[in-house]
Amino acid sequence: MSLTFEINSRIGKARGGRLITPHAAIETPVFMPVGTVASVKGVPQDTLEELGAQIILGNTYHLYLRPGVDTVRKLGGLHGFMSWRRAILTDSGGFQVFSLNELRKVSEEGVTFRSHLDGSSHFFSPESAMEAQIGLGADIIMAFDECTEYPADQARMRASMEMTARWAARCEKYFDANKDRVPWRPSSAGGIGEGAGEQQVPRVARNDKDENVTQSLFGIVQGGMDRALRKESAERTIEIGFPGYAIGGLSVGEPRELTREIVASTLEHLPRDKPRYLMGVGTPEEIVEYASLGVDMMDCVQPTRAARHGLLFTSEGKVSIKQARYAQDAGPLDANCGCRVCNRYSRAYLRHLYASNEVLAQVLNTIHNLSFYLDTMRRVRHSISLGEESRFLSSVWSRPKP
Amino acid sequence: MSLTFEINSRIGKARGGRLITPHAAIETPVFMPVGTVASVKGVPQDTLEELGAQIILGNTYHLYLRPGVDTVRKLGGLHGFMSWRRAILTDSGGFQVFSLNELRKVSEEGVTFRSHLDGSSHFFSPESAMEAQIGLGADIIMAFDECTEYPADQARMRASMEMTARWAARCEKYFDANKDRVPWRPSSAGGIGEGAGEQQVPRVARNDKDENVTQSLFGIVQGGMDRALRKESAERTIEIGFPGYAIGGLSVGEPRELTREIVASTLEHLPRDKPRYLMGVGTPEEIVEYASLGVDMMDCVQPTRAARHGLLFTSEGKVSIKQARYAQDAGPLDANCGCRVCNRYSRAYLRHLYASNEVLAQVLNTIHNLSFYLDTMRRVRHSISLGEESRFLSSVWSRPKP
Repeated sequence: MSLTFEINSRIGKARGGRLITPHAAIETPVFMPVGTVASVKGVPQDTLEELGAQIILGNTYHLYLRPGVDTVRKLGGLHGFMSWRRAILTDSGGFQVFSLNELRKVSEEGVTFRSHLDGSSHFFSPESAMEAQIGLGADIIMAFDECTEYPADQARMRASMEMTARWAARCEKYFDANKDRVPWRPSSAGGIGEGAGEQQVPRVARNDKDENVTQSLFGIVQGGMDRALRKESAERTIEIGFPGYAIGGLSVGEPRELTREIVASTLEHLPRDKPRYLMGVGTPEEIVEYASLGVDMMDCVQPTRAARHGLLFTSEGKVSIKQARYAQDAGPLDANCGCRVCNRYSRAYLRHLYASNEVLAQVLNTIHNLSFYLDTMRRVRHSISLGEESRFLSSVWSRPKP
Repeated sequence: MSLTFEINSRIGKARGGRLITPHAAIETPVFMPVGTVASVKGVPQDTLEELGAQIILGNTYHLYLRPGVDTVRKLGGLHGFMSWRRAILTDSGGFQVFSLNELRKVSEEGVTFRSHLDGSSHFFSPESAMEAQIGLGADIIMAFDECTEYPADQARMRASMEMTARWAARCEKYFDANKDRVPWRPSSAGGIGEGAGEQQVPRVARNDKDENVTQSLFGIVQGGMDRALRKESAERTIEIGFPGYAIGGLSVGEPRELTREIVASTLEHLPRDKPRYLMGVGTPEEIVEYASLGVDMMDCVQPTRAARHGLLFTSEGKVSIKQARYAQDAGPLDANCGCRVCNRYSRAYLRHLYASNEVLAQVLNTIHNLSFYLDTMRRVRHSISLGEESRFLSSVWSRPKP
């Protein structure tokens, strides 16, 4: 098996489990830091390991443009290329084509889009998105979907959802026929130091040396903000059959209450024994809430992006470290946080680094925010494992909302 | 004693020793990474410790402007402010006033200059530069000198050297009268968590809890490119009497051969039993050479600045990591380097990070370059301690020059 998912404990709709991928066993619910172009911005890989990141996310759109799939494949896939030994998930590029390309052209065949780097023209189809993700070699890859814009009318939401369903079938077919070409397969050319390729590919640890281990392809449920379309999308995606299911097309501008409603209703229609991945959310409060609804996997740029803007998540709410009030504040950023930043540096120092535009500001801010997210999810898992239903939310988020 | 210097071994003119400061015992010859505004750009303090940095340098000019001496003093001095437990040296600001301020006005009293940040007008005198450095609280502080421009005629070099000598006497006098006001003194207001101040100042480790421990002030020899003036400057500075002596006013545009000549001749006139600090040099080859001439301390922005431009020092010469030839190079940056960057990442990955303008490029490049410099100096010390005179230079620099 290339993917095993076991649920070990439940509280209400929340599940505590274990997702075993070729490169790592992952405790769920899990938060996945985003490493857009093979780097979680500003954070060395060994620091990510210390923070307890179990799985990180790479963006196919960005990696396809730079450094290019061929380069990553030759270096042993993303694992070898960025020297990350734990699990990786890549998205399909669908969301970036949607969000970074106003000039994209969508047809049944696929999407023509322009590079945000140099304006050059490119084409993604379900097949080419699979090809790219096989070359990148993440443990979990995603079907190429169309992220329906918000707002959209009923006809548009239906047409878009149906396109995603047809594309999902094409993805599954192409993946099934080509999945043995993943760069870290022992039998694959350019494998992990087995001498198959000319390149000296860095060796990465894998839990499973089975020749038959491959990547796993997850399907994505779309359907806009319509519950019935979401249900239909879930059913059609399940009919194709995937080892895991994602909820896409949310956090695209809709109110948070609507996001929550669509997530809750869509989860009803997903298999209980398969991992459920909610894409692109959310705040610390939200990831706790979604975990309580039964989501197993989440990713979000918030901790890393906010850090670059000096916005820091703490047990007492958000801190905008640039504020002058912190200029002589000798206390730690968050007295309840055990991360290496809170253990060592004062708010005054972090404020100074930010005000002075020092690179270390981004490094330390990102380490703290990621620590806060990963720690929050760790407490969610702990809470689920203890079975303390009544204390579930309060124990992980026992603080005034910011 | 606030400073102890012992020489344990010699090879030719080179000396291997131990410099004991209030916050750390330092093996010499030592290379000091530059942490301009209380941060070695891009590198967290714990990483600096792992790299074996024994002492780092802060720039008084920059720190005076931002965050300001008062803030640093209140946070326990630079040690408390940036949470650095080992030794720190601050320069006097003289060099930055010289190099960053074309509009400066120099008088007997001091220098009026404009902030490079906002154009505001400021004044440094020997006394105010001491006051600032006492507030910053480095283990070793530097006399306020005039860095003579290059080229300069004989009259100008003499006048400038004499001004520096008069200023040195004023610095010494002011320092001697005020040295007990260093922020980390147990008896000082705002001391290290002794409850003297209102602020909760981070505790920093110190080797010496003696109430009488203070900072140490070093004198600086100027005299331009004239050997006789350098000799006279050395004599006048020694006459005032300092626990250590620096050679300033070099690396200001003169040819390297001339730098070497002035260094060698000036060293002849410095006390053999006191630490000798050559300011602002140099390449890896140069720091080895200066150590062989008898220099004990050096600092330079080269490893950190070059890293930001993708220029990396390796055992096979300089590598410009941005070059396309490294795009698919799976080998480590330097196969002879044991740093955490060379241990983990490929040239292809480092090239990708740089080409993608990722912050991690600066972080990893700086870690490697600092590791290379610190390692080079470690090998110099090892070589001196073994007494292998004939192998001195070759053992630490056994590689083709770039």
